[in-house]
Amino acid sequence: MKKLNWGMIGGGQGSQIGPAHRLGSGLDGAFSFVAGALDHNADAGRAYAQTLGIAPDRAYGDWREMLAGESAREDRVDLVTVATPNATHYEITKAFLKAGFHVLCEKPMTMTVAEGEDIVRTAAASGKICAVNYGYTGYSLVRHMRAMVARGDLGKVRLVVAEFAHGHHGNAADADNPRVRWRYDPAQAGVSAQFTDCGIHALHMASFVTGQEVEKLSADFASCIESRVLEDDAMVNFRMNGGAVGRLWTSSVAIGRQHGLTIQVFGETGGLRWAQEQPNQLYWTPLGGRVQIIERGEANLSPEADRSSRVTVGHAEGMPLAFANIYSDLAEMISATKEGRAADPAASLCPMAVDGLRSMAAVHGAVVSAKGQGEWVDARPPMFRD
Amino acid sequence: MKKLNWGMIGGGQGSQIGPAHRLGSGLDGAFSFVAGALDHNADAGRAYAQTLGIAPDRAYGDWREMLAGESAREDRVDLVTVATPNATHYEITKAFLKAGFHVLCEKPMTMTVAEGEDIVRTAAASGKICAVNYGYTGYSLVRHMRAMVARGDLGKVRLVVAEFAHGHHGNAADADNPRVRWRYDPAQAGVSAQFTDCGIHALHMASFVTGQEVEKLSADFASCIESRVLEDDAMVNFRMNGGAVGRLWTSSVAIGRQHGLTIQVFGETGGLRWAQEQPNQLYWTPLGGRVQIIERGEANLSPEADRSSRVTVGHAEGMPLAFANIYSDLAEMISATKEGRAADPAASLCPMAVDGLRSMAAVHGAVVSAKGQGEWVDARPPMFRD
Amino acid sequence: MKKLNWGMIGGGQGSQIGPAHRLGSGLDGAFSFVAGALDHNADAGRAYAQTLGIAPDRAYGDWREMLAGESAREDRVDLVTVATPNATHYEITKAFLKAGFHVLCEKPMTMTVAEGEDIVRTAAASGKICAVNYGYTGYSLVRHMRAMVARGDLGKVRLVVAEFAHGHHGNAADADNPRVRWRYDPAQAGVSAQFTDCGIHALHMASFVTGQEVEKLSADFASCIESRVLEDDAMVNFRMNGGAVGRLWTSSVAIGRQHGLTIQVFGETGGLRWAQEQPNQLYWTPLGGRVQIIERGEANLSPEADRSSRVTVGHAEGMPLAFANIYSDLAEMISATKEGRAADPAASLCPMAVDGLRSMAAVHGAVVSAKGQGEWVDARPPMFRD
Amino acid sequence: MKKLNWGMIGGGQGSQIGPAHRLGSGLDGAFSFVAGALDHNADAGRAYAQTLGIAPDRAYGDWREMLAGESAREDRVDLVTVATPNATHYEITKAFLKAGFHVLCEKPMTMTVAEGEDIVRTAAASGKICAVNYGYTGYSLVRHMRAMVARGDLGKVRLVVAEFAHGHHGNAADADNPRVRWRYDPAQAGVSAQFTDCGIHALHMASFVTGQEVEKLSADFASCIESRVLEDDAMVNFRMNGGAVGRLWTSSVAIGRQHGLTIQVFGETGGLRWAQEQPNQLYWTPLGGRVQIIERGEANLSPEADRSSRVTVGHAEGMPLAFANIYSDLAEMISATKEGRAADPAASLCPMAVDGLRSMAAVHGAVVSAKGQGEWVDARPPMFRD
Repeated sequence: MKKLNWGMIGGGQGSQIGPAHRLGSGLDGAFSFVAGALDHNADAGRAYAQTLGIAPDRAYGDWREMLAGESAREDRVDLVTVATPNATHYEITKAFLKAGFHVLCEKPMTMTVAEGEDIVRTAAASGKICAVNYGYTGYSLVRHMRAMVARGDLGKVRLVVAEFAHGHHGNAADADNPRVRWRYDPAQAGVSAQFTDCGIHALHMASFVTGQEVEKLSADFASCIESRVLEDDAMVNFRMNGGAVGRLWTSSVAIGRQHGLTIQVFGETGGLRWAQEQPNQLYWTPLGGRVQIIERGEANLSPEADRSSRVTVGHAEGMPLAFANIYSDLAEMISATKEGRAADPAASLCPMAVDGLRSMAAVHGAVVSAKGQGEWVDARPPMFRD
Repeated sequence: MKKLNWGMIGGGQGSQIGPAHRLGSGLDGAFSFVAGALDHNADAGRAYAQTLGIAPDRAYGDWREMLAGESAREDRVDLVTVATPNATHYEITKAFLKAGFHVLCEKPMTMTVAEGEDIVRTAAASGKICAVNYGYTGYSLVRHMRAMVARGDLGKVRLVVAEFAHGHHGNAADADNPRVRWRYDPAQAGVSAQFTDCGIHALHMASFVTGQEVEKLSADFASCIESRVLEDDAMVNFRMNGGAVGRLWTSSVAIGRQHGLTIQVFGETGGLRWAQEQPNQLYWTPLGGRVQIIERGEANLSPEADRSSRVTVGHAEGMPLAFANIYSDLAEMISATKEGRAADPAASLCPMAVDGLRSMAAVHGAVVSAKGQGEWVDARPPMFRD
Repeated sequence: MKKLNWGMIGGGQGSQIGPAHRLGSGLDGAFSFVAGALDHNADAGRAYAQTLGIAPDRAYGDWREMLAGESAREDRVDLVTVATPNATHYEITKAFLKAGFHVLCEKPMTMTVAEGEDIVRTAAASGKICAVNYGYTGYSLVRHMRAMVARGDLGKVRLVVAEFAHGHHGNAADADNPRVRWRYDPAQAGVSAQFTDCGIHALHMASFVTGQEVEKLSADFASCIESRVLEDDAMVNFRMNGGAVGRLWTSSVAIGRQHGLTIQVFGETGGLRWAQEQPNQLYWTPLGGRVQIIERGEANLSPEADRSSRVTVGHAEGMPLAFANIYSDLAEMISATKEGRAADPAASLCPMAVDGLRSMAAVHGAVVSAKGQGEWVDARPPMFRD
Repeated sequence: MKKLNWGMIGGGQGSQIGPAHRLGSGLDGAFSFVAGALDHNADAGRAYAQTLGIAPDRAYGDWREMLAGESAREDRVDLVTVATPNATHYEITKAFLKAGFHVLCEKPMTMTVAEGEDIVRTAAASGKICAVNYGYTGYSLVRHMRAMVARGDLGKVRLVVAEFAHGHHGNAADADNPRVRWRYDPAQAGVSAQFTDCGIHALHMASFVTGQEVEKLSADFASCIESRVLEDDAMVNFRMNGGAVGRLWTSSVAIGRQHGLTIQVFGETGGLRWAQEQPNQLYWTPLGGRVQIIERGEANLSPEADRSSRVTVGHAEGMPLAFANIYSDLAEMISATKEGRAADPAASLCPMAVDGLRSMAAVHGAVVSAKGQGEWVDARPPMFRD
């Protein structure tokens, strides 16, 4: 597969979601990050893009500049990710689609339903892909849940219970914290806060996993911190087009919860439970049987699960990130050497040859002890003995 | 930081550890993967390297060819990773160090203590980095454990209890399975099997976290499957140079355990517990207090923890891999379009604009319901109503 | 404290709740079980009562007989527990209250609101205690939650999230199972099934823990198994008189859930989470702090928690029941001896002197080994060596 | 079954283990607690026994007095529990056995192996039961583990890993705390501290579950708090007479661990894991299959498991103790009324009729709301509306 070109709008310095997109797009080597308009401050965006390896002529000051620049190139980006403030998603996504680019738009895709329908129609007319980043559906076992439902393991789905609760906005003193305040301000956030910010991930996952669409709903919104105009807690009951009953709770004032995206699906012949904070396990109970723990990466899962799993069973999915820290230390040490400067002391934790040596001394010592009567033996390498 | 050049020996098609190294080295964009001798079959290795984007002249047939080729280049690799069968680590690592390359060697670094000392001396003489891939020390909270111990949160460390138990070799019928059999054959594996394969990760972690070295040990090895010459289960008691008592259990016949690398550290003023299968939480109990759950990414951790954390608190560390699956789907769809072929049906799970639209319809419906009396409202986008 | 006399109506042979009441009332030795009308079949009830140690003249055929009999005695029961079918609670409870007995009534106390008000007024007029068995509020840490809220640890309570989900009625084939069917039949169960059966435990717990009463609510009921007239799944949103928002989910079709009674309370300055299936731990997160695990029985809890805790910290609350099994085995063995019969073979698991001896041999062997070099020693008692 | 008479030596006021024996022996109503010599202070023991309902003539000053007194009675105790300081177990147990009493002795049964053999021989000669209180073997699922092993579910057992770690003696300042100090003093505790206090529970459980006896062992003891003469941490490796390899870790300095008695058994065809702190679940993994969660009380377990389970599946085993707290509150309220005094305010948490009424109002309100459009309805009983 030929490497594709990728660009990003938004996701500048200090952004939470920007790094996740760059890690995600780069992970398999399928995309090269070649263009970006990363910041609403044009100069800051251009500078930051170049620190990330973008060529100066593709480090754009804003999305319009990027649209013009990329449209004019032979090697234009194959995919553009829109990770700007919510209110701008619609305009940017539409413009790129119309110019013939594939787009991955952060959620919420638009602020209104009419805008959403316009994007769907624009994408259809353009023949281009317009994807939306409900990224949690990318977890291998979420995809396996979907496969299990689709192939009938649960029989007809009766009930879906979804939850996305955290407590990061539980401090009333944050009323003046700009990183929090805008989220509950209709002028900036639109008609809904927590349900739009988190709840729709859970709602989409309910559809993703069951293969059913929401038909009707009844909602209860609350502003648990009274100064907020928009809701910080919501309960939504819904009915799906395949007959499933749905329940969805989302909250930003659930102090002690970190990132409580969970989904439970109950059908005629079994039940499933999965939680984002423990993504490597899926709890499956066949009717009349015991809870079974399905492990990501175990043998004989669905093709969907296999395709989206990169490390062997039992490894936390974050294991490649742990490995990456070893490489990150090495990169800093090597670069420092090359540049004739001192390395960052925080990048000194990478295990070195001496650690490998000590292990070998321990192995050989253990063999001697175990072959004998379990006697105590010196486990130090000879070169380190007194 | 200028991008560095990276190459790999071993880790060819079907390898478990190869992809983890490629993911890890590529994740932060610090290294370009530019050279490799990936397979003991020269042709297979050259071909596979090119499918991974290596230029033909740097897709080598074996490590000697790679050593010669890279030594001759101006833009030689800055770091070479050695991920070949264990018995070859010593020779290859030594050769590259002597030729002036930085090396990251897979564990075990060597087969004997003498070889280990030779590598340490060779690295020192060369002035080059020789690192060993105890990759689990890269987890953010493992590094935070080390920082907590180092800054004195636990007082003097009294006791370390390490464990690495799995059950993947628990089937006696695997005596003839070539993927398992060689591990217990002294001719191929050397003096020890499970302790070398897994135990030394846990033993090194005990040193890493406490900052103490193993001085002496007493071991009990067992071949729970009797046909095995080498141990599939081991208990090692040890004493460290800072006075800590150590206990280490490792097993490959613990059926039901997947990847049970855990470490507990107990000191004068508190205790810590961490498990690889749940790497985002660290359990900390100050003397006389309650168990507290430290979350990866929470505010005010150590610099070592912060430097090695990429996603915000509450996300499973695997979240970038979930995002990567979204991008992987998109890459396949876009590539298929460009190449005029049908996309892999398994790569069709990426959420699309219609999903974004449905969310918006749900949000607006919920707002209407919540502002009223919780009445049921149609949650479908108008364009999808009957 | 002088021992009190206790009697029971309902809870005959095969009843689930009867044994729990007898265990609970007898546990601390405060009550003697002296009277009962245990079964709707008068003869069966009289016979069963006597097997439980009730004197023949207090083994009644029905509750009216018991009311008459006990009313006529000097040593009448101090407390009567009503554990009959739901529809009879009202009549029996009222009759005993009016006759001057204290009553503990199983839930639901009545079938209608008017009956409930009548009971409240009758109890007030009689000056007698009328308690209702929301028995889960008896858990030590539930009482501690209440104490923490009451003393202000959470500040003002904003949100309560309660749940009582199980999957024991998830099998559609149970439509004809008499143990399940009646629960969903309005003729026998009244206006509601799952919400009345389980949901009100959770709803009461929300009041118990917060000290607030439910003022208004909005409900969504579903019959996930379509043949059911009454709900097997319900979501109830509510508002409390102290300003708290409430959410309550209850289900009997959540396959894989056993007894999912959980409660979460979120306030201005912290959050709490407790689950019945793990009753010995309470998860407490102060605003801005980490999750802390409060253990039942730990030092310096509230008086309410201390009063309701019987075993030391770290023991599962069921530890006395484990001990009781040792005693149960012994009772069978001793009785068999006295009665000159063979003991039930299933009652032969109690550890015996030989087990105590073997332990002592192991201890002394271990001391020898540990004082030496960890050498292997014979751990068998001399009398059992070959 | 005729009720048996039970007496106790030791377990006086303030004892930890005394209440557990009284709860355990009384739970099923098989034993009446009729005699005791509860305290080394004769007057205190006599007084305390009477507060527990013992008749004055059977409230003895010491065990010799009790031995004489009970031996002279027709209605002598059927079973005597010895829960005195360890060093006295041997003498008392032997004396009662020789006098023809059945005995349940606390662990450790004796201080030496020779004493242990003497007890075994004495019991055999007397024809009386001499049991030892390894009470944790009474848990239903521990008995089920034994049954699974015995019936061959695991094939031949290869490996047993037992653990009993806590941190309650982790404070070096406790060197002067009399409740802790004696445990590490050879004059009072004998040859071993932590291994005898906790480790032998785990070691016996290894035998109990596997049906195999320990043949030889190798031990490593450590005094992590240096001022201690006896060990506060121990690792014992062992081999069993059926071929199983054993590993046992016990510690009293594992800060953060409460009561970490766990056992894992691995055989040819599966593995089991159980932990005392979560006694209602047993993790079972058949070879090549997934982890399954066996629930205490589920259908179709072994007869041994069924016989030792008192509450239905999903209830924490402590549920009867929660119920007991309801009864405890009622006992206090009723007694206070009878005695014309104020009730203990801490005994006021029992739910009352008004709580039952409020539930009924909520149920009927919910039915109205759910039958309609989910509208909000007043959930208060009419009598409590403004």
